Amino acid sequence: MSDREHTDQPPELPATSWAVLGILSFGTELSGYDVKQWADQSLAYFYWAPSQSQIYTELRRLEQLGMAVSRVEQTHAAKSRRLYGITELGRRSMRQWSDEVAAEPVVLKHSQILRLWAAHNGDLDRLRESLAAYRDEALRTAEESGAHAVGARREEDWRFSGVALEWAERFYRDEAARIDWLIERLKGMR
Amino acid sequence: MSDREHTDQPPELPATSWAVLGILSFGTELSGYDVKQWADQSLAYFYWAPSQSQIYTELRRLEQLGMAVSRVEQTHAAKSRRLYGITELGRRSMRQWSDEVAAEPVVLKHSQILRLWAAHNGDLDRLRESLAAYRDEALRTAEESGAHAVGARREEDWRFSGVALEWAERFYRDEAARIDWLIERLKGMR
Repeated sequence: MSDREHTDQPPELPATSWAVLGILSFGTELSGYDVKQWADQSLAYFYWAPSQSQIYTELRRLEQLGMAVSRVEQTHAAKSRRLYGITELGRRSMRQWSDEVAAEPVVLKHSQILRLWAAHNGDLDRLRESLAAYRDEALRTAEESGAHAVGARREEDWRFSGVALEWAERFYRDEAARIDWLIERLKGMR
Repeated sequence: MSDREHTDQPPELPATSWAVLGILSFGTELSGYDVKQWADQSLAYFYWAPSQSQIYTELRRLEQLGMAVSRVEQTHAAKSRRLYGITELGRRSMRQWSDEVAAEPVVLKHSQILRLWAAHNGDLDRLRESLAAYRDEALRTAEESGAHAVGARREEDWRFSGVALEWAERFYRDEAARIDWLIERLKGMR
């Protein structure tokens, strides 16, 4: 720990830790529950939809590393919650990660296209139905991302988060359009 | 095992097992090395770029389940290789998977957009460079997928594989166009 503070290398952490530290880097003190809400309204659209327990694991890890700090807040007489904030070390590490650690490869595991690729094994009409349902879901996701992007534009600190959500809206609209193309492309095939 | 053959439920296997069985379902007897080539030229563009050792793990699993069968072929006096083929049980399972098992959610872990989302922590010029490099890579990937799609169109059995690769070509072209939009969108921001 004490060595860490004096090196110029950011610690080696999974990208999911950086994602949770990234949420704290917006500067608000947050409970594990709050972090999950933030993740569901931003990260989930382009990177990761963490479970509540994954978030607590990451928060504990960040606290052990001195990158986050927590305190217990008494909300009512019989109720309390633990709030997490980023430390100076956390900020410095976040900056090093942004500027010095190359982004890992983009991961795409497109189960719908996997099904298409293996479509000589099964019923093509069933595949078409599955694709149409996926297209509708992509359009809904596009709308949601767009709505969250509007929300993010309200705060100067969230400006890049807002652009990421605008990107997501485009991504899911393009995704839906590509599925429309695909359904058309499959016409007459068997 | 013997029970399995008489049930109507496909066995519960990770999607990566189905992907490898899917390669065998094209009907050619293949070595582990061949399977890797097939994966690199199709699956890798939309689902999974498996390592050689992951492929051997999956082939052994499929053989244990009776869904694949292997034999050793003596290629030269001092050289042999193990060839894998799909069994009737494998074909039936593949068909059940195609028709009865719902596709799992599409996974996108977009490390470039994660960096954008957290861009208030770092140097924006560095992010722009990283995005431009990723855009160029996406264009190269689009070209590769397009070339493999042309190859796949040569065989009637590969027709859906070919369409999947056409989809991948579009995906990576759209991806590059969205990054161009993003670089433009970031102009003047800091």
